[in-house]
Amino acid sequence: MSNAILDQTTLVSADPLAPVLGGELPAPLIDGTTVRYVNLDYAASAPALQEVSDYVQSVLPYYASVHRGAGYASQISTSLYENARRIVRDFVGGRADDAVIFTRNTTDSLNLLAGCVPSEGEVLYLDLEHHANLLPWLQRPHRSVTAADTVDATAVALDRELAAGGINLLAVTGASNVTGEVLPIGRLAEIAHAHGARIVVDAAQLAPHRRLDVSGDEIDYVAFSGHKLYAPYGAGVLVGRPDWLDAGTPHLAGGGAVKTVRVDSVSWATGPARHEGGSPNVLGAAALAHATQVISGLSEADWQRHEGELRTALIDGLSDLPEVTVHRIFSEETDAIGVVNFSVNGYDAGLVAAYLSAEHGIGLRDGKFCAHPLLKRLGLPSGSLRASFGLGSRQDDVERLLGGLRALISNGLGTDYVVDQGRWVPAVETRNFPEWAPHTPGTAGAAPCSTD
Amino acid sequence: MSNAILDQTTLVSADPLAPVLGGELPAPLIDGTTVRYVNLDYAASAPALQEVSDYVQSVLPYYASVHRGAGYASQISTSLYENARRIVRDFVGGRADDAVIFTRNTTDSLNLLAGCVPSEGEVLYLDLEHHANLLPWLQRPHRSVTAADTVDATAVALDRELAAGGINLLAVTGASNVTGEVLPIGRLAEIAHAHGARIVVDAAQLAPHRRLDVSGDEIDYVAFSGHKLYAPYGAGVLVGRPDWLDAGTPHLAGGGAVKTVRVDSVSWATGPARHEGGSPNVLGAAALAHATQVISGLSEADWQRHEGELRTALIDGLSDLPEVTVHRIFSEETDAIGVVNFSVNGYDAGLVAAYLSAEHGIGLRDGKFCAHPLLKRLGLPSGSLRASFGLGSRQDDVERLLGGLRALISNGLGTDYVVDQGRWVPAVETRNFPEWAPHTPGTAGAAPCSTD
Repeated sequence: MSNAILDQTTLVSADPLAPVLGGELPAPLIDGTTVRYVNLDYAASAPALQEVSDYVQSVLPYYASVHRGAGYASQISTSLYENARRIVRDFVGGRADDAVIFTRNTTDSLNLLAGCVPSEGEVLYLDLEHHANLLPWLQRPHRSVTAADTVDATAVALDRELAAGGINLLAVTGASNVTGEVLPIGRLAEIAHAHGARIVVDAAQLAPHRRLDVSGDEIDYVAFSGHKLYAPYGAGVLVGRPDWLDAGTPHLAGGGAVKTVRVDSVSWATGPARHEGGSPNVLGAAALAHATQVISGLSEADWQRHEGELRTALIDGLSDLPEVTVHRIFSEETDAIGVVNFSVNGYDAGLVAAYLSAEHGIGLRDGKFCAHPLLKRLGLPSGSLRASFGLGSRQDDVERLLGGLRALISNGLGTDYVVDQGRWVPAVETRNFPEWAPHTPGTAGAAPCSTD
Repeated sequence: MSNAILDQTTLVSADPLAPVLGGELPAPLIDGTTVRYVNLDYAASAPALQEVSDYVQSVLPYYASVHRGAGYASQISTSLYENARRIVRDFVGGRADDAVIFTRNTTDSLNLLAGCVPSEGEVLYLDLEHHANLLPWLQRPHRSVTAADTVDATAVALDRELAAGGINLLAVTGASNVTGEVLPIGRLAEIAHAHGARIVVDAAQLAPHRRLDVSGDEIDYVAFSGHKLYAPYGAGVLVGRPDWLDAGTPHLAGGGAVKTVRVDSVSWATGPARHEGGSPNVLGAAALAHATQVISGLSEADWQRHEGELRTALIDGLSDLPEVTVHRIFSEETDAIGVVNFSVNGYDAGLVAAYLSAEHGIGLRDGKFCAHPLLKRLGLPSGSLRASFGLGSRQDDVERLLGGLRALISNGLGTDYVVDQGRWVPAVETRNFPEWAPHTPGTAGAAPCSTD
């Protein structure tokens, strides 16, 4: 049977939409066997697209100092870096004068913006945010609103708070990193603007799953990360209106960020340079920009069908298991990206994650997802599980997860697990690790987003 | 003639000590011919070691979320990242309890430290510093001292200022990024400690050229960058005593940096996590760590001979040209790394750099090297030229530079040059650029460290 006569719908959902590195990674199991690693943790960090990795390898021989060298390689590196701004601006549908500032990640982007919001106003945010879109605002005047039971009621609550006055920035996620539910950013932008405020969208989760239209939706600022966008080379980005950024606190005091320096005084540059002190991450920016080109080149229909079919299959499969509860923020069905949050009755989330890893070769995320306030409000103070997927995912990934959960519910755990420094692990670790990454007990929880 | 009968000394200086990417890069010239690109700009950004690039490619398929995933790839990525701390600590000869915090670059590391210096003291620095080791201190109480005519007199001047009291941190470069001259960091540490102050060494330039011994020299903090250490993947590092770091301002407010978060309050973590908010640059840290292993594996004798011979050849060759002036900070000969600073009488530094690029395929740095105060004091307010080299450099690089300068002095410029947005460029650009890095006039000076 040739591929040509396979049903196209089946093909799309069964296969990765684009090749990623590690798509066929062998994962050892605790019983000594080996299976293909199932990566259902895209929402934390997505694998590199093969095309992005190839691109980095092809530009790397030209890598040299940017901005300040006359050499051919420096000129090429400078072009690579500066053109990456235009490519990313196009990807988000930005305005011609929008600043594109390369940062380390979304957290960094939002910290940068926090230093630029005019001091006379407050920042307003929802309680459902990731810490990246919550902690930066605590350092300056701020207010928060608890998300309501529906998207509509949440928009009304934000409208009411904005109407009370004194707010100059609404900070909102494009899609929840906990549940994948999408927020109506265009509508929220309209509400913010009606009250004289601007809006910043944390698009760390949204950008890898939906086309952005910053100018069409009148979004003032958008932030996202390369490592969730198939370009894990250490760069993130902030795109948006230049006026606040040109007047704000320089994000990193150092070379490149200044106009003139005397031994004890300084005059700061404007433009992206103001916030990009020190040598920039040229490869990171180039990789991020190239990933946006690969994503822009996808058929919108194929992309959304691929993700939608995987999500439906996973939600349907989980719903067939009475022991499993799927968590949502809003009571009604909303648009949602490839992120599904759930718990298994009677099992600690961390124990299920350890079991799925050790006995089924599946990687997913457990815990509080750096969104403590939301998890507490959802009645999940000790965390839950999150399966998330993307361009390299396939139907088999969903089936493997559902199979692992069914086996747990039917047969229980196949080996003993203990808690090591806050993380569930097999009582006896038998899996081999590469020599360059030795098994290192106790480090898995080194920065767990929570120690309570 | 076989290689075996070549003189060994000649071989060492003639050949790269370790393969780097781009070592055989073709560079088009303005006359339509092509030559091997000569990279004499290592001090700005060094090329990637082939071994580092290979390593990154081998670990990339295992890339996944760190710290918070139970999956096999997450465990490996976490081990890779956390073990990178130990590898870097060993490389600098750190103390067992020294914190190793991954940052974006040296500038970022020193900004981080600036947020951790106890507020009751002042930071003392010399006027010869790179902006990375100058601008971060302007944000807090500080004093500066003008470097004297000799290293000894400079140490005496620092001792006198420290004796005046009130200083809790001496910030000093390990080697000047302008002239390559090495400062006696062990001796300066002793002086600082005698007055109850600590010392931080900006080792961005020193680490790629000399073995560090943080514990032996009693250095309290050391900072350097991957992009100058043959690992241009966006990571730098700060290594040092944990007490100030555990009590200081978290460098980046975000996930991972916190113990607990409520909707409007936060309790911060200690350890590296406190300052590494957001998803870390795993590949960058791993690449930096691997580069330190490659460098640690070099024969100390070969390493220093390779660099010393190239430096001697370059200095000797420049000294034979009466039209060339070599610049130094100190009047006596001091230990110096592979960085040589010079001017050509009658030619603007930027014009010489543009000429060497367009007519000889050589890349070096011109300008003020993000060290404005020093350049002004050296009588070079409009800048100078800097040739810098490292592991991938060879005798031919030096000869090509000397040949280019001799041709300039004998024959003058071979084509016309104009100033485009502050940078000298050929009046008519004929060189081809890769399609992914189109010739982009006006961007070369996008962040020139100076617009005056």
